[in-house]
Amino acid sequence: MSEDYKNMWKELGLDLEMHDALLEVLGKGYQDVFLSQKNRPEGMGYFDFVMSEVHGLRIKELMDEKKGGRKIIGSYCVFVPEEIALSGNATLIGLCAGADFALGEVEKVLPRNTCSLIKSTFGFKLGKVCPYLEASDMVVGENTCDGKKKAYEIFAEMVPNLYIMDLPQMKSDQGRALLKAEFYQFKEKVEELTGKTIDYPSLKTGIKTVNNKRRAIHRLSGLRKVDPAPISGLDALLANQIFFYDNPARFTESVHKICDELEKRIEEKTGAFASGTPRILISGCPMAVPNWKLPAIVETSGAVIVGEESCVGERGTRNLTDESGGSLEELMDAIIDRYFKVDCAIFTPNPDRLSHIEEMVGTYQADGVIHYGLQFCQPYSMESMSIENALKARNIRVLRIETDYSMEDAGQLRTRVEAFIELLK
Amino acid sequence: MSEDYKNMWKELGLDLEMHDALLEVLGKGYQDVFLSQKNRPEGMGYFDFVMSEVHGLRIKELMDEKKGGRKIIGSYCVFVPEEIALSGNATLIGLCAGADFALGEVEKVLPRNTCSLIKSTFGFKLGKVCPYLEASDMVVGENTCDGKKKAYEIFAEMVPNLYIMDLPQMKSDQGRALLKAEFYQFKEKVEELTGKTIDYPSLKTGIKTVNNKRRAIHRLSGLRKVDPAPISGLDALLANQIFFYDNPARFTESVHKICDELEKRIEEKTGAFASGTPRILISGCPMAVPNWKLPAIVETSGAVIVGEESCVGERGTRNLTDESGGSLEELMDAIIDRYFKVDCAIFTPNPDRLSHIEEMVGTYQADGVIHYGLQFCQPYSMESMSIENALKARNIRVLRIETDYSMEDAGQLRTRVEAFIELLK
Repeated sequence: MSEDYKNMWKELGLDLEMHDALLEVLGKGYQDVFLSQKNRPEGMGYFDFVMSEVHGLRIKELMDEKKGGRKIIGSYCVFVPEEIALSGNATLIGLCAGADFALGEVEKVLPRNTCSLIKSTFGFKLGKVCPYLEASDMVVGENTCDGKKKAYEIFAEMVPNLYIMDLPQMKSDQGRALLKAEFYQFKEKVEELTGKTIDYPSLKTGIKTVNNKRRAIHRLSGLRKVDPAPISGLDALLANQIFFYDNPARFTESVHKICDELEKRIEEKTGAFASGTPRILISGCPMAVPNWKLPAIVETSGAVIVGEESCVGERGTRNLTDESGGSLEELMDAIIDRYFKVDCAIFTPNPDRLSHIEEMVGTYQADGVIHYGLQFCQPYSMESMSIENALKARNIRVLRIETDYSMEDAGQLRTRVEAFIELLK
Repeated sequence: MSEDYKNMWKELGLDLEMHDALLEVLGKGYQDVFLSQKNRPEGMGYFDFVMSEVHGLRIKELMDEKKGGRKIIGSYCVFVPEEIALSGNATLIGLCAGADFALGEVEKVLPRNTCSLIKSTFGFKLGKVCPYLEASDMVVGENTCDGKKKAYEIFAEMVPNLYIMDLPQMKSDQGRALLKAEFYQFKEKVEELTGKTIDYPSLKTGIKTVNNKRRAIHRLSGLRKVDPAPISGLDALLANQIFFYDNPARFTESVHKICDELEKRIEEKTGAFASGTPRILISGCPMAVPNWKLPAIVETSGAVIVGEESCVGERGTRNLTDESGGSLEELMDAIIDRYFKVDCAIFTPNPDRLSHIEEMVGTYQADGVIHYGLQFCQPYSMESMSIENALKARNIRVLRIETDYSMEDAGQLRTRVEAFIELLK
């Protein structure tokens, strides 16, 4: 890393020693998991570059944006509407929450029975190793699950620019009214932060930009329907992860470039894995960078992942925001409608999620579903049993995994995953 | 038990063998925990009788009420407004959730990492041993914590007359609007169930009845301020537990009778424990019958419990509903205001709870606080650390306990509680 980056990190208040240690682990993990894959599309070179510069060039870009008067908003959830941030002259960035860090410090302020994602959020702050968090002019927490909702109360003491967005628990009229009030309040908050009024043209542009990013991901997902799958699940997951970090327009263009290549591979019947490889759908909790444990195990155990029913995956990206509204109010309503459809397990009841899983099994010709739950994540844990029962009733094979970010159970997981894949052959 | 009861239980669909086993354990537990206490007020005889008939006479009363055209509504939470139920010609009853039952069956449908209270709710249903649940014409579930919210989705498959009440997560204008909509919907639901329209006079009467019950408990609590405390924490907890089961008017009268006796004891300086006994405030998760584990350990380890900051305690009863409203709408607003004040840990932020704990420590001259958390209860677990820090900063001693309904950790708990009490001397 260049001296420039070191100075930038120092100015952001990072702990350089810890941060170096993190980058080393991250780099090695990336090497082991991604660069060791065979038959990768060439276009993945772009994402390899993004990942190699994820705390470097991308942060420099954000700092340059800040110098130019733009604001950076950090978020931990797909419920924070990027359309509103963009149209208010702000860049929305997904914050680091995919690896254990400073666990000893974390467990001084959070109960042990807290999921890895939340512990990671705290670890990156307490360890001072997340340049995205430190570069953010505002950080948005959301009342999704109990764990996050209550943890943000403690997080607020460490992150003075934390803004809390409330969310409904039911898809009722009152629930929608609550979301509407919150999104309008968020719009005002963004305007206050950036000094820019969000108007009809800017919101329309914001919606189009985010939709285009989603459309690119839809195109990528669509190409995974064929056998042999032209791209590994790991690489597709990476694209879904970088969705939260990269410049939107450049991301969209890069994904389309990969898709052009994948279409050629499909014509030539070139796959990331051999034709006939068992096809797995992953469903459940989000996987943030660098949480690649389970997919890496699956794809080195003789199966290919063909879809992610996840916030970092189709749950997060499948719905577009209607662009046709003729007024600011209509566009805001379209945004509210779009996010109100997200079938997160925090909603009760949440039947759309099961329908979506069943639909994805058909669309992507999956031979089985692995339900991925983070330990102590009550909403997904509770849904996992009903989902397992419902899928089994339709003769769809299911493996229910509950894990965390540690590597301690990797051997055990591999044994279970291998046995499951054997059943699918 | 008489043959009449057996027939009644059979008609309710109870598993008589399992139910007998439950009653035996319950009876023995009551004997060991309550009847072995020394220096009990004579008035507790009434509660001893209530407990001895908790699945007998009280159920018979409810069945008689049903024959007379009244409806029974079961609930699991202090957010369900009893005022509305009563004024709609229905009796509100707290349902069984204080003991492990049919755990093997429960863990087939619920994740292992679920709190004992929720597991117990399912256990009493799956084991067919809760006559209150089976006698209920409608059962109300509420979206409080993630665990309950998501578990009710599964519970609905076993309890076809389950009605879900949504709740807000923040004390915002939108949050209040949501609660208002839900309470009006509940009112309509009660009217639909009973065929009786809730009008101004009936609602006013309902409010007064519930307020009178609360006032009686306030009087009882107030008498616990003195040293020596005239009543044990166990007996006071029992009164708070029976609050949810008994006929409201009779309960009110019986509590006042005990208070008359306690006032005499105070004059005579007669305490349940010797003067100078270390005084403990319990704060945290609710304790439903027969969850007496922790209080029994505390009061046989040399301390007296002088207050419960709990839903089964002051959190549930401390606020009255304003009776002065001049119209149905004003009374409904008063009910909404009253319940919106409840400082349950499901709210974020929830500063009132800490203030209330601090206030209670002063009012009841507590020497220390035991924070009682159920394992896997995220909202209270998350708050417990901040509360411990805040109280310690005020030089108030705190012991943080996390447990479940099993007796496996009783020895360990006793050791910790004894050590804590030593510190208070």
